[in-house]
Amino acid sequence: MQSTPGQFAPQPEDRFTFGLWTVSNRGRDPFGAETRPPLDPVDAVRLLADCGAYGVNLHDNDLVPIDATPAERDQIVRRFRQALDETGLQVPMATTNLFFDPVFKDGAFTSNDARVRAYAVQKTMRSMDLGHELGAHVYVFWGGREGVEVDAAKSGRDGVKRFRDALNFLCDYSLDQGYDYQFALEAKPNEPRGDLYFPTTGHYLAFIETLAHPEMVGVNPEVAHETMAGLSFHHGVAQAIDAGKLFHIDLNDQKPGRFDQDLRFGSESIKQCFFLVKLLEDSAYAGMRHFDAHAYRTEDYEGVKDFARGCMRTYVILKEKARQFNADAEIQGLLAEIAVDDPDLDALTATYSKENARRLGERVFDRQQIGAHRLQMERLDQLTIDLLLGVRG
Amino acid sequence: MQSTPGQFAPQPEDRFTFGLWTVSNRGRDPFGAETRPPLDPVDAVRLLADCGAYGVNLHDNDLVPIDATPAERDQIVRRFRQALDETGLQVPMATTNLFFDPVFKDGAFTSNDARVRAYAVQKTMRSMDLGHELGAHVYVFWGGREGVEVDAAKSGRDGVKRFRDALNFLCDYSLDQGYDYQFALEAKPNEPRGDLYFPTTGHYLAFIETLAHPEMVGVNPEVAHETMAGLSFHHGVAQAIDAGKLFHIDLNDQKPGRFDQDLRFGSESIKQCFFLVKLLEDSAYAGMRHFDAHAYRTEDYEGVKDFARGCMRTYVILKEKARQFNADAEIQGLLAEIAVDDPDLDALTATYSKENARRLGERVFDRQQIGAHRLQMERLDQLTIDLLLGVRG
Amino acid sequence: MQSTPGQFAPQPEDRFTFGLWTVSNRGRDPFGAETRPPLDPVDAVRLLADCGAYGVNLHDNDLVPIDATPAERDQIVRRFRQALDETGLQVPMATTNLFFDPVFKDGAFTSNDARVRAYAVQKTMRSMDLGHELGAHVYVFWGGREGVEVDAAKSGRDGVKRFRDALNFLCDYSLDQGYDYQFALEAKPNEPRGDLYFPTTGHYLAFIETLAHPEMVGVNPEVAHETMAGLSFHHGVAQAIDAGKLFHIDLNDQKPGRFDQDLRFGSESIKQCFFLVKLLEDSAYAGMRHFDAHAYRTEDYEGVKDFARGCMRTYVILKEKARQFNADAEIQGLLAEIAVDDPDLDALTATYSKENARRLGERVFDRQQIGAHRLQMERLDQLTIDLLLGVRG
Amino acid sequence: MQSTPGQFAPQPEDRFTFGLWTVSNRGRDPFGAETRPPLDPVDAVRLLADCGAYGVNLHDNDLVPIDATPAERDQIVRRFRQALDETGLQVPMATTNLFFDPVFKDGAFTSNDARVRAYAVQKTMRSMDLGHELGAHVYVFWGGREGVEVDAAKSGRDGVKRFRDALNFLCDYSLDQGYDYQFALEAKPNEPRGDLYFPTTGHYLAFIETLAHPEMVGVNPEVAHETMAGLSFHHGVAQAIDAGKLFHIDLNDQKPGRFDQDLRFGSESIKQCFFLVKLLEDSAYAGMRHFDAHAYRTEDYEGVKDFARGCMRTYVILKEKARQFNADAEIQGLLAEIAVDDPDLDALTATYSKENARRLGERVFDRQQIGAHRLQMERLDQLTIDLLLGVRG
Repeated sequence: MQSTPGQFAPQPEDRFTFGLWTVSNRGRDPFGAETRPPLDPVDAVRLLADCGAYGVNLHDNDLVPIDATPAERDQIVRRFRQALDETGLQVPMATTNLFFDPVFKDGAFTSNDARVRAYAVQKTMRSMDLGHELGAHVYVFWGGREGVEVDAAKSGRDGVKRFRDALNFLCDYSLDQGYDYQFALEAKPNEPRGDLYFPTTGHYLAFIETLAHPEMVGVNPEVAHETMAGLSFHHGVAQAIDAGKLFHIDLNDQKPGRFDQDLRFGSESIKQCFFLVKLLEDSAYAGMRHFDAHAYRTEDYEGVKDFARGCMRTYVILKEKARQFNADAEIQGLLAEIAVDDPDLDALTATYSKENARRLGERVFDRQQIGAHRLQMERLDQLTIDLLLGVRG
Repeated sequence: MQSTPGQFAPQPEDRFTFGLWTVSNRGRDPFGAETRPPLDPVDAVRLLADCGAYGVNLHDNDLVPIDATPAERDQIVRRFRQALDETGLQVPMATTNLFFDPVFKDGAFTSNDARVRAYAVQKTMRSMDLGHELGAHVYVFWGGREGVEVDAAKSGRDGVKRFRDALNFLCDYSLDQGYDYQFALEAKPNEPRGDLYFPTTGHYLAFIETLAHPEMVGVNPEVAHETMAGLSFHHGVAQAIDAGKLFHIDLNDQKPGRFDQDLRFGSESIKQCFFLVKLLEDSAYAGMRHFDAHAYRTEDYEGVKDFARGCMRTYVILKEKARQFNADAEIQGLLAEIAVDDPDLDALTATYSKENARRLGERVFDRQQIGAHRLQMERLDQLTIDLLLGVRG
Repeated sequence: MQSTPGQFAPQPEDRFTFGLWTVSNRGRDPFGAETRPPLDPVDAVRLLADCGAYGVNLHDNDLVPIDATPAERDQIVRRFRQALDETGLQVPMATTNLFFDPVFKDGAFTSNDARVRAYAVQKTMRSMDLGHELGAHVYVFWGGREGVEVDAAKSGRDGVKRFRDALNFLCDYSLDQGYDYQFALEAKPNEPRGDLYFPTTGHYLAFIETLAHPEMVGVNPEVAHETMAGLSFHHGVAQAIDAGKLFHIDLNDQKPGRFDQDLRFGSESIKQCFFLVKLLEDSAYAGMRHFDAHAYRTEDYEGVKDFARGCMRTYVILKEKARQFNADAEIQGLLAEIAVDDPDLDALTATYSKENARRLGERVFDRQQIGAHRLQMERLDQLTIDLLLGVRG
Repeated sequence: MQSTPGQFAPQPEDRFTFGLWTVSNRGRDPFGAETRPPLDPVDAVRLLADCGAYGVNLHDNDLVPIDATPAERDQIVRRFRQALDETGLQVPMATTNLFFDPVFKDGAFTSNDARVRAYAVQKTMRSMDLGHELGAHVYVFWGGREGVEVDAAKSGRDGVKRFRDALNFLCDYSLDQGYDYQFALEAKPNEPRGDLYFPTTGHYLAFIETLAHPEMVGVNPEVAHETMAGLSFHHGVAQAIDAGKLFHIDLNDQKPGRFDQDLRFGSESIKQCFFLVKLLEDSAYAGMRHFDAHAYRTEDYEGVKDFARGCMRTYVILKEKARQFNADAEIQGLLAEIAVDDPDLDALTATYSKENARRLGERVFDRQQIGAHRLQMERLDQLTIDLLLGVRG
């Protein structure tokens, strides 16, 4: 697989989007000051257009400062709108910043303070208005401060209950306003709080079923967040797809068991990213492929462009490899050999009936013989590695 | 809190149970041979009775060898029944061993081999018969081999689908047989497989909602399993309780980020175990408190008794500390100060209406003032530590 | 163990110190702004004195801004000196901030830029001057930016080599100036860099032996840093003590496998902290007990005091429990039973000689019998838990 | 990089070796029985020869059962010798099994039982005799049981001391016998014990300097073991090379933060394995490239061959990619741009003198300007990813 110029360039149909906050990230971290100057949102839009992105997503305060007057807000939005129109970039998703301001120091929807809970709902309503105005159809909820360090102070049951109350209210608000939002819930196990409620995509998938409008709520899994807990990211995504709940996805990369790194997509866990891309493409996922990552703190804004281009390029390369995998005769032959089909047996267990149960109960299985079936997993995995390393035809 | 003799002894109302496999564990590990001789199930029952346990749970093959004839099976069960009757021990829960035999080397319900899938269902039916015969009302599913090392071989979506098919069939089997089983699903992130499907309790809670009989299926969270992934165990349990799905619980202990240790309850993460016990007691959890742990490999069967007694003792001590916490005037006063209630605001967001939305939208919040509210979390947490260390009145 | 007023108050002989940066931490994190106003260093000194601390440690820029003129610097130091004199607080340790300024974005001593490397050495010399002026005898090196995200850019071998060059130069500078500094190297596995060189105390202990003046260099292990990697903290400290290299220690707390939390000492891992305190006290560690932690972001400065007092209080409680452990007849009796001494055998293997080797070679050991010795670890561990929970006499 | 037949075949100069225990691993794990029949050591040798390995390493009991009589032992060795001669395979390394038998349930060299400590030394002497007889020049020490679950039972300081006593004795034994062994110490953080002493290669590098014969002792780092703790494996290896102590290396693969997986080399962490291979090749490492891994439990012995071949193949592919990296003009140009050399400054800090210190102290650095130097790490890292994925020329 030799690269030709432009071969792995992003295409509009790839639906590659970036958060406004990702390319505008200034490189501050817990032990260091900013290394990049502020980036005007309008310049961020142009930078992304330049790199070939399809869209840009935002938190309310990525664009409009928390203290802006209505008039300032409108002018900022107008100017931003203009940049979108000039560049053709879409705003497919919006979300609320419920974590930066000290008012949220002990959570937003799940705070122990009734005023904070109400203010968080109000702030989200306004942010939903903004997102709608910019054309967003997906609204993401990441509960950055919804959790605790001190479990003595707040019951986990209250956390769940309060989050549900807020979501139910906001679903109704969306419906009442005639917004066609799909809500997408984004899990994270910890950081910045000691432990966050709903630590994985699984926990949110479960929570959705307890809402008043489950049909309008899905998930926004993020590579880094599930990987921090050492979970298989694409297994979680597969379960979300199975449940019809993959409304959005956050692509980046991460080493397990450490701080939230938000690395360039595919820069760390090549094999896992391959299976993720393969899953999305094989499932004909129609949503946005959103990169929620940022450039290393060492970079200037040229490096930020390298970062943005790299995210998309690696996705496209892995998409091509997924196509190869599906077309590879040796691999597909091996897969056929590994699986043992038996339609009669499948029929027996597909639907319960007394008769099926009786027949299954009487069936004699030869454990030793079945257990001896060759599975050839080492060979299959090595072929995958060869394909990833580009040493197959 | 000075201990008096017998003060922390287990009581029948504590519903303390142990797996037959836990006290019978012989100390084998991946790098070492067994250090304890085999323990006859009847002796295991007596050992547990001796220690004050309420019940004993089992996998089919803990009691009946996988190759036993029906006649052998019946005789084994009769003898076991007798030991139960003599000691008064209950069998509240049963489960299936779908992981030890080589036939399950690539999974059971989710195997790529239709024969394995069908055999796993058959084996579970028979094990459900056995459990019912012994009086069990909870049936646990731990998918010890339901996962992969080689993602190329099996799609995560197939894993979910196949597991659902099996569960649906077995729910119907239970209903059809007139068994009153509650099914309890037990998650684990990895080990023995590279990655297991449904890695956390959250994933199972979500999966249940996709079943044909969700009402009869709940979860069986295990301390060690969620802790391996570094998640807050009692947060997950709180969500299960919120959903009405805590049907069973597996108590033990574990260090995060390593192999499955199944340590004596409360021997490692004292603070987390305290909040778990407090949650169960405050929620008036009525199910079994099941210890799924085993003694260190260094121990003989006297040490196994020390282990079993220690599990129960520490639970009872922590239960007493939870009572103290709830009765401690300084702690309760602090909790009251920390929270800020505002019934009017709560009423506004409790139920959506255009009017409520309008009024909330118009409300002016003083961010700085609200953000400055003293939360005193360090003080509250130190009081908790003092209480745990036994240096409060 | 009932608490009486003042019973667990810090004493000067406990040598409890805090970093100036710890109580001055303003609660900023990667996802949130500062929640506390700036704290004048002089007020930090008073706050610590108020809480009963013995001393205060500092980075150069905790006290003197990086851009201060010499005159400004001298005035700041004079004012700080005065606060020390008023309160009686000592400055036993100093260190350099080589991580906050953008100039260090790719490391300090190990940067790929010769100018950065030289500037880092210059900055450290000046900071050593400052520390000496304030009376410090220990000089800590934490290489906060010494590492990489992009391994392609820098060889790990160069990292080691450059760090050594800097340390050798600075050792000579210390000697040449007549400072009596002991250098103490502080390891961390990651954060803020993707991977940091010398990720554990073990790596630094090894590195020291390759220096020109190994005798003046030791380690400064930090609870949180080793715990991030899931290692047993007190085992690492034990090895440092064995090597005569425990020159300083950073006490705090941390959950494994996540971001650097710097929690209040003893607030998370009670059992591990107990064994650490026991090790330090049993070893008659004569150095500072330095708390490198900070209050939760939810706190105001009253909460910061609660935090500082809590760190010291829990240490003192655990010290008392260590004393109890050593005096507990049942525990000590059990320890005597567990161990099997055999002075003749020990003598045989203590020193090699042909004769000893021959005699050892001929010795017949009864593996089964030796392997059957009762170890009673479950009982011993439960007694420890009982003692920690305060339910022993 | 298109593969031609035989292009990535192992060569004798690659010095690829496998443990006898690796290909003979029968697929048992903590939750499942063996899936493969026993493999005669002689057949293991033939299997490895068949796959193109250079050598085979062994624990004493991989070949000779722990209870064998001297006559049985001699016959077994003779037969094994014959297989080696037939196939041309070497035995470059030997080691002792000090973990499987129950006698070692609480450790070997660090046991609390003097008889166990002495027996472990005796067993190692005999195993060293065997290794020497088979031609081994490297002797590995992995302290599989040297650790604790119950810290109350054994002091970490005793652990270090006892391990040193044993090593000192055995160094002398080697010298006295005229064996030319290099000892290589292999670290692991945990499993099978709760915590193992000397958890990382860094800890062993430090420990070596406290031995009586440090010059004959080095390290044997293992990919999986350091990766379990989430550490950068090749940074640790780089430090070992810097110290002249890389005497042997164990290649395999592993996901961080979980049980010891011993996966096929390069099957999981492609990028990390690439930098490891690059480091070994760039450093002209002359020792064995030993694979300490085993086939998935799903495999039969054909799959074991696939596994063994895959380990070597991926190494050779990555070696070729390392060569490409070093020859890539764009990458090398970028590296030259990233680094800033300044021989004058380097000379100033290379060796301390009063004059150099004075001149360095007076030097004025322009922090802003230096900090603004473009580092282009995102671009460099993307080029590395492209190279790994085979999409560069």
